[in-house]
Amino acid sequence: MLRVRGAPLIGIAAAMGVVVAGRQEGRDAGKRGRDKGGEWDLEGINKACRLLGATRPTAVNLHWALDRMRRRAEQAQQRGEELGQVLMDEANAIWDEDRAMCRRIGELGMTLIPPRATVCTVCNAGALATGGIGTALAPVYLLHEAGQTPHVLVPETRPLLQGSRLTAWELTYAGVPCTVLADGMIASRLRLGDVACVIVGADRIAANGDVANKIGTYGLALAARAHGIPFYVAAPSSTIDRATPEGSGIPIEQRDAGEVTGWRGSRTAPEGVRVWNPAFDVTPAELVTAIITDRGILAPTEIART
Amino acid sequence: MLRVRGAPLIGIAAAMGVVVAGRQEGRDAGKRGRDKGGEWDLEGINKACRLLGATRPTAVNLHWALDRMRRRAEQAQQRGEELGQVLMDEANAIWDEDRAMCRRIGELGMTLIPPRATVCTVCNAGALATGGIGTALAPVYLLHEAGQTPHVLVPETRPLLQGSRLTAWELTYAGVPCTVLADGMIASRLRLGDVACVIVGADRIAANGDVANKIGTYGLALAARAHGIPFYVAAPSSTIDRATPEGSGIPIEQRDAGEVTGWRGSRTAPEGVRVWNPAFDVTPAELVTAIITDRGILAPTEIART
Repeated sequence: MLRVRGAPLIGIAAAMGVVVAGRQEGRDAGKRGRDKGGEWDLEGINKACRLLGATRPTAVNLHWALDRMRRRAEQAQQRGEELGQVLMDEANAIWDEDRAMCRRIGELGMTLIPPRATVCTVCNAGALATGGIGTALAPVYLLHEAGQTPHVLVPETRPLLQGSRLTAWELTYAGVPCTVLADGMIASRLRLGDVACVIVGADRIAANGDVANKIGTYGLALAARAHGIPFYVAAPSSTIDRATPEGSGIPIEQRDAGEVTGWRGSRTAPEGVRVWNPAFDVTPAELVTAIITDRGILAPTEIART
Repeated sequence: MLRVRGAPLIGIAAAMGVVVAGRQEGRDAGKRGRDKGGEWDLEGINKACRLLGATRPTAVNLHWALDRMRRRAEQAQQRGEELGQVLMDEANAIWDEDRAMCRRIGELGMTLIPPRATVCTVCNAGALATGGIGTALAPVYLLHEAGQTPHVLVPETRPLLQGSRLTAWELTYAGVPCTVLADGMIASRLRLGDVACVIVGADRIAANGDVANKIGTYGLALAARAHGIPFYVAAPSSTIDRATPEGSGIPIEQRDAGEVTGWRGSRTAPEGVRVWNPAFDVTPAELVTAIITDRGILAPTEIART
C-alpha cells in the first residue's frame, strides 16, 4: 500500500521510522535478555534501515535519509551519546531542513514564472509531498503570497490520481485556482499556447541530469518540447544521485495491475487482461530546461558538477 | 449520455434513428390531423435529421449518414416510392457498406503491420465502434485470422475508459493478446523500442489531412514521432470532410466536468474545481504517416485530392 508518498516526505517519514523501529528492535532485544544498554541499538537501527530502504527503490531521498540516520547513530555510539535523543534530533533536523529547502526552491523557482501565469504540473509535488510548501508547487505558493497567483493545470495522474486527489485539493485549500484534466488531454492543452511553463518534482536525478518522476512526466516533457514550453524540475539536492550515471540505471518500481484495471472496487478492464503499470518514468536531460534545487537553478548538464 | 459511440457506428445508428424518428414524427403529425399520406413524411424526416445531427458536432459520419438519408427520402418522394421501406433499405445499405468498409481497411492495413508485431491504439475503433470488425482494429483482426496475431497496447483512455472497457474487452473476447496501460504511460511504453506502429481511428479528417479523434490521440502522435514509430489513422472515406480546410475548423465537443472529477459515483477531485474536458483533439497532418481508408492508403497530403 502507498501510505506515504512524495520523495521528500518519504525521506522524513523514513527518518522518523528509524526512530520508532530502531526503538522497537532495541526493546525486543532487551526482552530476549540481550540488553545492549538501552532501548535503541545499532543492530536494530541497521535492521530498520534495511527494511525501510526496501520499500521504494526509485526514491533516492529515502536512502539519503536512512544513510544519514545510520551514520549519525554510529557517530553517536562512538561518542557515547544517547541514541534515542540523537536519532529524534536528527529526524527533526531532516524535517526542518526540508521546510527550508522547500522555501528556497520556491524563492528560486518564482523568478522563472511570470506573474499570474498558467503553469502545468503532474502528480503531487506540493505540501502533501514534503514537510514544507512542496517542491514543484513551492514557487506557486510564494507567487500566491506575493499577489501574483498562477493558474495551475493539474493532470489527474492515473492510476492513483494524485493530481486530482492531492494537488487539486491542496491548491483549492490554499486558494490557488487550478484546472483538472485527464492525462491524455495534456498535449492538447499545452497546444493552446497560453502555458508559461511546466514544473514537476523528481524522485531521483541521475548524474547526467536524467530525471525519474511519476509516470506521465516523460510524455508531458515531450509535449512541452513540441510546443516550446520550458520544462522545469524542482527537487531537493538530496534527490540527486551522483552514483547513478544516467537514467537507465534508475530502478523503476512496477506496481499492482489492480491499480489500472479498476478504481475503488469498480472494475473497468476485463478479467485476466495484462497490465503495464510502472510507477515512474525517466525524462532524458535534453528535455529538461532547468533543475531548481535548494542549492540553485542548474542546467541538467551541471548536475554532475554540483 | 454517451450511449452510442464510434464514428461509423454513430452513422449507422443515425440512419436507423431517421427510420424510427421519422416514422414517429409522421405518426404524431397524423394524430394532429395533418395526415400527409403515410407514417413517414419529409417534414418529420428532416426534423429527425436536425435533432440527430445536433448530438455530436465532431462526428462527420453522422452528418454524412443523415445527408444521405435525407437525399434518399427526397428522391423517394419525387418518385412516389414508399418512404418507410426506402429509408429502412438505405439504413441497412449503410450498415452493409460499413461492414465491407471495415474489411477493406483491414486488408489494406494488415500490409503495414509486420507479423506478430506489437501495435498501439487508443480509445476504441474496433468492432464495438462500427457495424463490422472496426477500423483501427480491423487489420489486427485480419492478422489474427491469418495466424499472425499482433499484441495490442491499449491505453485506458480517460475519462470514459473506452480503451480498458471496450477495446481490451473485444480483443480479449476475440483471443487477441492486449496490455492495458494508463494514458500517462504511453510515451514510456513507446520508448521501449518494440512497438511497430500506432493505429487509431478518426472522427473527422480535414481536407489538409489533420485528424480529429478521441482526446489523447495528439499526445500519442507526438510520442510516436519522438520515437520514430509510424502513426496510422484508419477510417472510412466518409470520415473525410473536404468542406473543412484544416483541423482548426473542426468543432470540439466539451463534455461534462463530472466525467473527470469522478468515476461511477466515486468523487476523486475537490468540489468546485475547474475541469477541462474536450472529447476530441486534432492531430496535425505532419504527424500522420498514412491514412488507411476503404479507398486506399493515402498520405495526409493526398486527402484533398481523393
